[in-house]
Amino acid sequence: MKSTEGKYTTIHYQNYLKLKELLGSQELRSAQLGEEAHEEMLFIIVHQVYELWFKQIIHELHSVIEFFEDNEVIESSLSVAIGRLNRVESILKLMVQQIGIMETMTPLDFLDFRNYLFPASGFQSFQFRQMESLLGLPEKQRITYHGQKYSSVFDEEKQKSLDEIYAKGTLLDKVNSWLERTPFLTLDGFDFLKEYSNSLKNMLEKETNAIMSSEYLTDKEKKMRSEMVGSTDSYFRSILKEETHNTLMKEGKKRLSYKATVAALFINLYRDEPILQLPFQFITCLMDIDNQVTTWRYRHAQMVLRMIGNKIGTGGSSGHEYLSKTADKHEIFTDFHGISSLLIPRSELPTLPKGIREQLNFHFNTHN
Amino acid sequence: MKSTEGKYTTIHYQNYLKLKELLGSQELRSAQLGEEAHEEMLFIIVHQVYELWFKQIIHELHSVIEFFEDNEVIESSLSVAIGRLNRVESILKLMVQQIGIMETMTPLDFLDFRNYLFPASGFQSFQFRQMESLLGLPEKQRITYHGQKYSSVFDEEKQKSLDEIYAKGTLLDKVNSWLERTPFLTLDGFDFLKEYSNSLKNMLEKETNAIMSSEYLTDKEKKMRSEMVGSTDSYFRSILKEETHNTLMKEGKKRLSYKATVAALFINLYRDEPILQLPFQFITCLMDIDNQVTTWRYRHAQMVLRMIGNKIGTGGSSGHEYLSKTADKHEIFTDFHGISSLLIPRSELPTLPKGIREQLNFHFNTHN
Amino acid sequence: MKSTEGKYTTIHYQNYLKLKELLGSQELRSAQLGEEAHEEMLFIIVHQVYELWFKQIIHELHSVIEFFEDNEVIESSLSVAIGRLNRVESILKLMVQQIGIMETMTPLDFLDFRNYLFPASGFQSFQFRQMESLLGLPEKQRITYHGQKYSSVFDEEKQKSLDEIYAKGTLLDKVNSWLERTPFLTLDGFDFLKEYSNSLKNMLEKETNAIMSSEYLTDKEKKMRSEMVGSTDSYFRSILKEETHNTLMKEGKKRLSYKATVAALFINLYRDEPILQLPFQFITCLMDIDNQVTTWRYRHAQMVLRMIGNKIGTGGSSGHEYLSKTADKHEIFTDFHGISSLLIPRSELPTLPKGIREQLNFHFNTHN
Amino acid sequence: MKSTEGKYTTIHYQNYLKLKELLGSQELRSAQLGEEAHEEMLFIIVHQVYELWFKQIIHELHSVIEFFEDNEVIESSLSVAIGRLNRVESILKLMVQQIGIMETMTPLDFLDFRNYLFPASGFQSFQFRQMESLLGLPEKQRITYHGQKYSSVFDEEKQKSLDEIYAKGTLLDKVNSWLERTPFLTLDGFDFLKEYSNSLKNMLEKETNAIMSSEYLTDKEKKMRSEMVGSTDSYFRSILKEETHNTLMKEGKKRLSYKATVAALFINLYRDEPILQLPFQFITCLMDIDNQVTTWRYRHAQMVLRMIGNKIGTGGSSGHEYLSKTADKHEIFTDFHGISSLLIPRSELPTLPKGIREQLNFHFNTHN
Repeated sequence: MKSTEGKYTTIHYQNYLKLKELLGSQELRSAQLGEEAHEEMLFIIVHQVYELWFKQIIHELHSVIEFFEDNEVIESSLSVAIGRLNRVESILKLMVQQIGIMETMTPLDFLDFRNYLFPASGFQSFQFRQMESLLGLPEKQRITYHGQKYSSVFDEEKQKSLDEIYAKGTLLDKVNSWLERTPFLTLDGFDFLKEYSNSLKNMLEKETNAIMSSEYLTDKEKKMRSEMVGSTDSYFRSILKEETHNTLMKEGKKRLSYKATVAALFINLYRDEPILQLPFQFITCLMDIDNQVTTWRYRHAQMVLRMIGNKIGTGGSSGHEYLSKTADKHEIFTDFHGISSLLIPRSELPTLPKGIREQLNFHFNTHN
Repeated sequence: MKSTEGKYTTIHYQNYLKLKELLGSQELRSAQLGEEAHEEMLFIIVHQVYELWFKQIIHELHSVIEFFEDNEVIESSLSVAIGRLNRVESILKLMVQQIGIMETMTPLDFLDFRNYLFPASGFQSFQFRQMESLLGLPEKQRITYHGQKYSSVFDEEKQKSLDEIYAKGTLLDKVNSWLERTPFLTLDGFDFLKEYSNSLKNMLEKETNAIMSSEYLTDKEKKMRSEMVGSTDSYFRSILKEETHNTLMKEGKKRLSYKATVAALFINLYRDEPILQLPFQFITCLMDIDNQVTTWRYRHAQMVLRMIGNKIGTGGSSGHEYLSKTADKHEIFTDFHGISSLLIPRSELPTLPKGIREQLNFHFNTHN
Repeated sequence: MKSTEGKYTTIHYQNYLKLKELLGSQELRSAQLGEEAHEEMLFIIVHQVYELWFKQIIHELHSVIEFFEDNEVIESSLSVAIGRLNRVESILKLMVQQIGIMETMTPLDFLDFRNYLFPASGFQSFQFRQMESLLGLPEKQRITYHGQKYSSVFDEEKQKSLDEIYAKGTLLDKVNSWLERTPFLTLDGFDFLKEYSNSLKNMLEKETNAIMSSEYLTDKEKKMRSEMVGSTDSYFRSILKEETHNTLMKEGKKRLSYKATVAALFINLYRDEPILQLPFQFITCLMDIDNQVTTWRYRHAQMVLRMIGNKIGTGGSSGHEYLSKTADKHEIFTDFHGISSLLIPRSELPTLPKGIREQLNFHFNTHN
Repeated sequence: MKSTEGKYTTIHYQNYLKLKELLGSQELRSAQLGEEAHEEMLFIIVHQVYELWFKQIIHELHSVIEFFEDNEVIESSLSVAIGRLNRVESILKLMVQQIGIMETMTPLDFLDFRNYLFPASGFQSFQFRQMESLLGLPEKQRITYHGQKYSSVFDEEKQKSLDEIYAKGTLLDKVNSWLERTPFLTLDGFDFLKEYSNSLKNMLEKETNAIMSSEYLTDKEKKMRSEMVGSTDSYFRSILKEETHNTLMKEGKKRLSYKATVAALFINLYRDEPILQLPFQFITCLMDIDNQVTTWRYRHAQMVLRMIGNKIGTGGSSGHEYLSKTADKHEIFTDFHGISSLLIPRSELPTLPKGIREQLNFHFNTHN
C-alpha cells in the first residue's frame, strides 16, 4: 500500500475521523442503570476531550524527547521543539478554559448520576500519568493516594510502560544532559562563576552603601532595605558552592545537576546573545508548561470543591484535598523557577571576553 | 438491569469513557500511505474534539427544543433552558479559542499530508449541519457549494434526518410561536404598538427641535444630526406596518412573524419588569450563540486562508471564499439583532397601566 | 447646565475620555532616576489597567448593594443585579487573562527598574481593599502583613472610608438579610428542615442497604462505599442543628446566619421552581465572582514567584508567600460553596405541598 | 537627579501610578448634562483601557522599528523583537476578549446616554491611527469615511506626526529592506528561484500523472483533482516573473518588493535551517498580529451592530458598515499571508548545496 499511488485513494471526512467510533462512545450510565440524567453527556464529553488533548500532548512530548537522542538533531531542531512545546502550552491553556464548561453543571445536576460512576475516577487516567512522567515528575515526589503507589490502579503492562518512561529518560533528564554540554562556561580563561561571584559581591556592597548613606530614607526604611539585600544573600549560596547544591539534590530539593544549573543561569543572564536566544526560549517554554499544568490542577481542585464540597470523591478519596496538594507539589521544572532569584541586573553583568562573544554570535544578513 | 441495585455495579474510568475506542480512532493517512507526518495527529484530534463538542451542542439544542413541546413546560423550564444555552455559548467560545491550536500548525507542515485527505472536507460534517438546522438556519439561505444542495454529500438516511429537523420545527420556529403567545400586548385597553408609535413621534419631534434651536451646534452639525434622526425613521416603518413586515418576510429578510417581532420588542423595552426578565435573558442567549457561531466561522475562514491561501480546499472548493461568505450570511436570529434599531430610551417609554404592571410582577420575598 | 438643551453640546473623543490626563500618567522612574528601562512602561500600564477595572467593579458593587436598601427594589432589580454581577465576573476573567501579559516581561527585564520602585507595592492599592470589603471579606479573616492592620498603609480618610463600608453593610451582609426574609420555609404546615432531614435519613439508609447487599462489590469496596456514605453524615450536622451552626459562626467558620443558610439550601434544592430561578442565579453569581477573585490571586502569586522568586518584594515582604496564602484564605462566600455538600439528588427531594408550589410559580404566557 | 543615589528616593504605589489623575478621568456626560446613566462608566472605562493598551503597543512598535535603524542591531535583537511582537499579539488577544465586556451593556442601556456623546467617535482615536501607520497600513488603502482623509479629524500637529511615521519608514518598510538583504538566494552558483521553479514543474507533472492513472478515482474526481493542480498554477506566476509582480505592486495588490518576496519564500521553505529559525518566527509574528487586529476589527463591528443596529453612529456614519469593511481591507502583511499559496511539500524542496547549508548552520553545544 505504501506507494505514491496510494495517496490518491479517496476518503470521506466521516471515515477519516472515525466518527462512528468516536460519536458512539458516549454511553450514559444513568440511562443504562436508571433514569437518563441529561447532564451526564457533558460529563462524559468533557472527559473525553481531555483525553484527546492528553494524547496530543504525549505525541508532542515523545517527539521532543526523541530529538535529544542525537546531539546534532536537537541542535538543528531546537526551533521545531520550541514550536511543539508552545503548542503544548496552548493546549493546556485551552484545557484550563475548558474547566469553565464543566462548571456550567451544578452540584445538584451531578448528584443525578454521581452514584453510577463508582469507583471510576480521574485518578485512573493513564494518559495523565504518562504526561506527568514524560515531563519528568520524580516518582518519589508524587503524593500517594490511599497509601498506594500512583500506578497501582493500572494493569501490569501499563505499569511497566510508565516505568519505562523513567528508564529511557524524561524530558527533565534530557534537558539536564543537554545543559551540561553547554560549552561556554570556562572558555578562553573566562571563568563564568568566578566573574559572577565578583559582580555579585560588588553589587551587594554598592547597594548597601547607597542605602545607608541615603538622605531620602528613614532609619526604619534603611533597615528594611538592608535586610532585603541581606536576604538575597542566601539565595546565592547554592549556586556558588557545589556541595551545598549536591546536598539539596539528595534531599530532593534540586533536580538539575550543579553543572546544568550553572549553564541555565548562564543562558538566563546572557539570553540576548544570538546563539543563546533559542536555548533561552526553550527553557522559558518548559516553565510556561509547568505554570499551565499547575494552573489546571488548581482550577480543577477548585471545580471539584464546588461540585462535591469536601465530600469523598467517586474514587473514594477526599478529591479536593488531594488535588489541591498536587497543584503545589507536582511542579516539575522547579529549578528553572528558582533561577529568577539568582539574576542580577544587566548593568552588573560581567562583560564577556571578545573571543566568547564572537562564538556566541552568528549572522543572518550582515556578513557579506 | 434497570434496578436500583444495578447502580452499584462498578466501572473503571477507562471503560466508562470508552478510551480504547476513543484513543484508537486516530489513524494517520500519511503513515498508512506514505511517510508519517508528525502534524497529522493534531489535524485529526482538533477535528475530533470539534465533533465531540458538536455532539454536546446538539444534545443541548434537542433538549431545549423539547421544552417547547408543551407550553407549561417551557414556562417552568425557562431558567434551565437559559442555563443550557449559556453552556452552548461557552462551548462555542472554547471552539473559537481552539482555532488558535490549529494555527500552531504551519502551511508547510500541512503540505506534508494534505494530499492524502482528498476529498474529505469539513463540508462533510453531518453534525455541523444538524446544529445549523436545529438552530433554524433557513434552507433557502444556505449558500450552495459547487452548486449542490448542502445535504447532497450525505447518505439518504442522513438527508432525511436533516429534513425532519425542519419538519418538527427548529429552535427559531419554536421561539416564534412562543413569542406569539405573549399575552401583554393589548390587555386592559393598553395598545402597546399605538403607545409606542406615539412615544416615537414625540421623541423624534422633540429631538429635531432641540437640535435646530441649539446654540452649540454649527449648521453643518445641525444638518448631520437631523439626518441621523431622520435616518432612524425608516427602521421603524416595518414594525409599525404589518404589511411592510410581511413583504420583507416573503423576501426572506425577516424570519419572525409580525406578532412575534412586536412581542420581542415589548420584552426588550420592558425587560426590567420581573416577569420579563427571564424571557429577555433567553432572547439574549440566542443572540450570543449567533454571535459566537459567526465569530467561529470568521476565525475558521481566516485560519483556512492562512493555511492554504486562496487555493482550492481538499473538498475541491475555494474554501476560504465559501467560509467567509457563510460568516455573514448564515446568521440565524437576525431579527433579534435588528431590534436594537427599534429601541427608544427608557425615559421615553410609554408608562404601563397599573393593571399590566401588576401582572408583570411577582414576588420572591416581600409578599408576606 | 442640566437642561435637555445641554445634551446637544458637542464633545470630542479626546476630551470625553480625558486622554491628555490618561496618556500623560505614565512616568517611568527608570528614566527619571537612571536609564530608561523599556519594560517599565508595561509594568505601569498593566497596573493602571487593573486600577481602572477595580473602579468599574466598585461601581457595580456599590449599585448592587444599594438595591438592597429597599426590599421592594431588590425584588424588582434582581435581574439587573445579576447582570451587573455577571459583568464583574467577566471583568475578573479578563484580569486573570491579563496576568499573561505581565508574564511577557522576564525577571531580568524587571531587575532593570525594580530598585526604583521601593517601597511601592500592590499592597498599597486602595481600590483593591475597597473591593474586598464591599464583597464582605471579614476584617478578622484578613491575613496581616508585617504585623500591621491591612489599612494602616492608607491615610486617615481612606481608613475611615474602609471602615464605613463595614458599617453600612457589605454585600455579604445584605445577602444574609435578604436570605433571612425567604418566606417559604415553614408555610402551610410544611416544615422544610424536618422534611429534608427525613429524606436524608431514608436516602442514607437505602444506600447503605443497597451497598451491603450488592453482589457486584467486593468486601473492600463495600467498606469503602459505606464509609463514603458515613462521611457525608458529618456535613449534615450543622444544617440540622442550629447550635452547631452558631458555634461554628463564633469560630469564624460560618458567615451566614443559620436562617440564611437554610434559605440558601432551600433555594439550591428547589431552584427549578420559577420564583427561585433568579435567586439561584444570584447566588451562583456570587460564587462565580469568588472563584474568579481566588483564581486571580493564585495566578498573581504564581507570576510574582516567577518574577522575583522567593525574594522579598518591593514592599519589603515575601510577596509570593503572602499572596498564595490569601488565595485560599480570602474567599468570601464560603458558606455557599459549602452547600454543595448538603445537596441530595432530585429524586430524593421532599415534595412540596400544592399550596407552596403555587406560590413559587408565576406565569409568563400561559395564564390567559 | 540622575544619580545612583536618586534611586533610593521612595515612592508610593498611589503616586507611582498617578492614580489621582487616572481615577479622576471618568466624567460621566450623562451626570453632567442630565441624569446619571449607570452604564456610562463602563463605556468610558472600556475605551480608556483600550487607549492604554494602544499606548503600550505603540511603545513596542517604536522600539522594534528602531532596531532596524542599524543592520547590526536588528541582527542581534531579533529575539528581543520577536518577544516584543509576541507581547503585542497577547495584548491584542486580550483586547478581543475585552469586547465581551462591552457586550454586557445592552442597546437599551446605551440609549440612556448615547445622545450626550455626539459627535465623539472611535474614529477620532489618534493612537489607533498611529498604530495602523506604524505597522504600515498604506495610506491609499485606507477606506475613507465621509469622504474625508482619515487624519482630517486631528489637529495639524497630529496630522504631521502621522505623516512623519510614513516618512521615517513603517514596520512594513523596514521589514521589506531587511528581507531584501537576505544573502542566501544566489550564493555559490545556487539559483534559488530556478531550482524552485524546476521542483515546481516536476511536482505538478508527477501529481497530474498520478491522478490520471489512479484506479481509485472516478472520472469526475480525476477532473476535479486535475483542476486543483491546475488552479495552483496561477499562484506561482507572480513569484516566477518579476514583471508580473511589479505590475501587481503598481495596482496596490502587492506591498513587498519582488526581492523581498522571494526572500520571504526562501525563509518559509527553509525555516528548519538554524539560521532561518528566528527570521521565520519574526515573519510569523507579523502575521499573527495582523490576524489579531483583523479579528478585533471584526468583533468590534459585530458589537456595534448589536448595540446600535445599522443606525448611524455617534460620529455620524453608518458605523457597522465602515467597520466591517476595514476588517477585510485594512490587513497589512497581506503578502506574507499569500506565501502559503506558494509553498511546496518538504519532500519536493530543492536540496541546498553543502556550502550554503553550512552557512545556514550554527552550533549551540556540539562544536567542541
